Amino acid sequence: MNYDNLTLHTDKYQINMMYAHWMNGTLNDKAVFELFFRKLPFGNGYAVAAGLERVIHYIKGLQFGDDEIAYLREQEENYEETFLQELRAFRFTGDLDAVPEGTIVFPNEPLIRVEARVFEAQLIETAMLNFVNFQTLIATKASRIKQVAGGDGLLEFGTRRAQEADASIWGARAAYVAGFHATSNLRAGMLFRIPTKGTHAHAWVQGHETEEEAFRKYAEVLPDHVTLLVDTYDTLKSGVPNAIQIARMLEQQGKRMNAIRLDSGDLAYLSQRARHMLDEAGFPYVQIIASNDLDENIIFNLKAQGARIDVWGVGTQLITAGDQPSLGGVYKLVAREGCDGTYVPVIKISGNPEKVSTPGIKEVYRIINRGTGMADGDYIALRHEEAVKRGEAIKLFDPLHPYIHKVIEDYDAVPLLRPIFKAGELVYAMPTLEGVRNYHEEQLKLFWPQYLRKLNPEMYRVNISVEAWQLKLDLIQRYR
Amino acid sequence: MNYDNLTLHTDKYQINMMYAHWMNGTLNDKAVFELFFRKLPFGNGYAVAAGLERVIHYIKGLQFGDDEIAYLREQEENYEETFLQELRAFRFTGDLDAVPEGTIVFPNEPLIRVEARVFEAQLIETAMLNFVNFQTLIATKASRIKQVAGGDGLLEFGTRRAQEADASIWGARAAYVAGFHATSNLRAGMLFRIPTKGTHAHAWVQGHETEEEAFRKYAEVLPDHVTLLVDTYDTLKSGVPNAIQIARMLEQQGKRMNAIRLDSGDLAYLSQRARHMLDEAGFPYVQIIASNDLDENIIFNLKAQGARIDVWGVGTQLITAGDQPSLGGVYKLVAREGCDGTYVPVIKISGNPEKVSTPGIKEVYRIINRGTGMADGDYIALRHEEAVKRGEAIKLFDPLHPYIHKVIEDYDAVPLLRPIFKAGELVYAMPTLEGVRNYHEEQLKLFWPQYLRKLNPEMYRVNISVEAWQLKLDLIQRYR
Repeated sequence: MNYDNLTLHTDKYQINMMYAHWMNGTLNDKAVFELFFRKLPFGNGYAVAAGLERVIHYIKGLQFGDDEIAYLREQEENYEETFLQELRAFRFTGDLDAVPEGTIVFPNEPLIRVEARVFEAQLIETAMLNFVNFQTLIATKASRIKQVAGGDGLLEFGTRRAQEADASIWGARAAYVAGFHATSNLRAGMLFRIPTKGTHAHAWVQGHETEEEAFRKYAEVLPDHVTLLVDTYDTLKSGVPNAIQIARMLEQQGKRMNAIRLDSGDLAYLSQRARHMLDEAGFPYVQIIASNDLDENIIFNLKAQGARIDVWGVGTQLITAGDQPSLGGVYKLVAREGCDGTYVPVIKISGNPEKVSTPGIKEVYRIINRGTGMADGDYIALRHEEAVKRGEAIKLFDPLHPYIHKVIEDYDAVPLLRPIFKAGELVYAMPTLEGVRNYHEEQLKLFWPQYLRKLNPEMYRVNISVEAWQLKLDLIQRYR
Repeated sequence: MNYDNLTLHTDKYQINMMYAHWMNGTLNDKAVFELFFRKLPFGNGYAVAAGLERVIHYIKGLQFGDDEIAYLREQEENYEETFLQELRAFRFTGDLDAVPEGTIVFPNEPLIRVEARVFEAQLIETAMLNFVNFQTLIATKASRIKQVAGGDGLLEFGTRRAQEADASIWGARAAYVAGFHATSNLRAGMLFRIPTKGTHAHAWVQGHETEEEAFRKYAEVLPDHVTLLVDTYDTLKSGVPNAIQIARMLEQQGKRMNAIRLDSGDLAYLSQRARHMLDEAGFPYVQIIASNDLDENIIFNLKAQGARIDVWGVGTQLITAGDQPSLGGVYKLVAREGCDGTYVPVIKISGNPEKVSTPGIKEVYRIINRGTGMADGDYIALRHEEAVKRGEAIKLFDPLHPYIHKVIEDYDAVPLLRPIFKAGELVYAMPTLEGVRNYHEEQLKLFWPQYLRKLNPEMYRVNISVEAWQLKLDLIQRYR
């Protein structure tokens, strides 16, 4: 199986449209598409952009090889042979701008903008949405958990329940971007240099005559980071007392046991009792790790009940975004090359008002108040608009409720889209994963806490310019 | 990036336990693990086993290469170099039995049974769970949709919302096993030989001066299967009338338009109106395809409202199993080699009674009533039990409510587990995907409809043998 090549990781209709453009002689017409989502997941107040590294590798790797060409030939007898030859020469030659990974983003903001031959721009829609939708979703879920966990340790433990292998590792990476500290998945660790953590399973305990023997044999061979799973038989009667014996044995060797892990039962009660037992026995430094279908709500409640948990192992609910397992990102044509070579803005009308697209090639700016250093709102303007670039007064207004508006001056407008590919060449210096994670942490500091809270966050302003709004109204008028 | 090698697609604790076994000299001790789930997803009455093909490729491909060894060496200074050499020589040398893909399965039935050196059995837990949990989940979700759709066409359209690339393609395959007819993902089509389908996007329409021009240019180049998306501007005022013009144009060329596609709005109303318009215009053969966040409940309701839809394009809710995006499959040690070389059955106790594992090496039989030819129940016995193999009378009883029991005679006991690997050699002739799909269809015929219905299905009996139950009671007694 030619598993590596992702060029056909696309919907069949993309190739059909490419064929139709090729047959009609419009394959070289330029088109501009924007990738964005319309609604925040989980009732959260923001999302965390992720997926760009995967997109970059994908774009660089695009190539119709022998297997792909042979498959298409066999699939569709209508395809002319010269079309298949055109595909063979395919590479991405356009411009691609994107919001860096780790950026805080909001609905209707272009996360990726592609300006390319329509032939190329069409092919890449499906895979980019697949990557960005999933990774942004998981980074956002992880960020919610991070908001609740505060300074506690956070471990990603989800591989066995993840939606197949790619989700495990790219999800582990997205979680790390948003502030998790480690993953259990070694392949994710190897590929992305995420720190990895692991203890032992119930099977280790079951595989020995007694729990004490199992703990001892484990601690003897990996004495430098011993974490013992204490719930195989009875957490408080057997697991914790046996773990305390091991902590004592390790102290005699001049070593310190790292932690115990609770994986079932009432984590609030068990952690308090276990903490008490460990402290009484003279091991206040032994940490307590908890796991068992945790998410931000359970962690929040356990903390409110005084659970004594230092590190949270989060699996299923994080890696699948259990409460909302998809982000509805879309990729919409916003402008196409007209007969005279200039761009014509285009719109998609819909019976659902929130699905009417905003036409025209756009930029998105984060408006930083020079007085407070904090973000006042985001401002989406047409690319050619100069006022915001020059720092002139701009009007933030809500088109649905025009009485809500304010004029802003004395701001820094930070463009969120950065050039990634220029005429097909990668011009973006990909940051390290640590760099992305640090950048994300800095990003969060630009936002007042009311935008970041888990429940009923205040809605952050994302406004479009007067000119962009007027263009939208004009095109709606034209098509109705 | 060494992306292909899945050997480190495992949790770190597996390698730690392998190391501990190696250090303690127990690495060659035999162990038996069983993979099963405890609870059916979606309130469904059954699940559809999937994931075995992926598991087989994974097991065959296991190899610690230079990158993996170097990574482990750097990760853990405790690992002795001779251990890493042991890993370099690693290959799977054990037995693996599994339920074939497409089999109807139930909670607590072993889907995979591994009998191998503990060193090997431990490594493969995480990846197998990752594959089987996801693929079984999606096949089951697809089967629910299939139950509702009856003879209608079913297309898998989920890639853009799937949880990364692997989920897209293995999910498309699982859906096909359970009765879907095609996928939009070309890579899934190429790798697994699933039929593919595709039309055109809104962007195709937006990219032309008028909708009529867009439709015409598309139909001219791919006249043999024209499906037109009619909701870009106004479905009934513009989309359907323009599509009818194209159908007329095609008839003049002696061709027949395939379908129109509705992707927004009230699908019940729009499909009825569109059907009427198409019929009136003389095109009763033009089908109606619908998409837009469909699942089995929406399809069920649309059909109840008399929607005139021939083919359903199902995306997000299928490919992510939106209402329950994870299956909680587990992999539990059931027996280990004792000092005398015989197997010792083992148990995991838990505060949650349903999490107490069933000890001992087990087989699972489907009990087919010779009178009706239908399945009367499944029977889980210890591997050495002969009565069921010989077709002697067996007692089906509910351990929690012992008054519910019956004795069965005159049955065929079909063992569900088949040998896949024997002493590390693949002994299973992998069926084609069509073979799996047909086998699944046959499987369904063994079950009365009350077990298959979507809402509140009757619970199918899965009973354990008296001997297996007694063994469980004895071990619980021993550990409490």
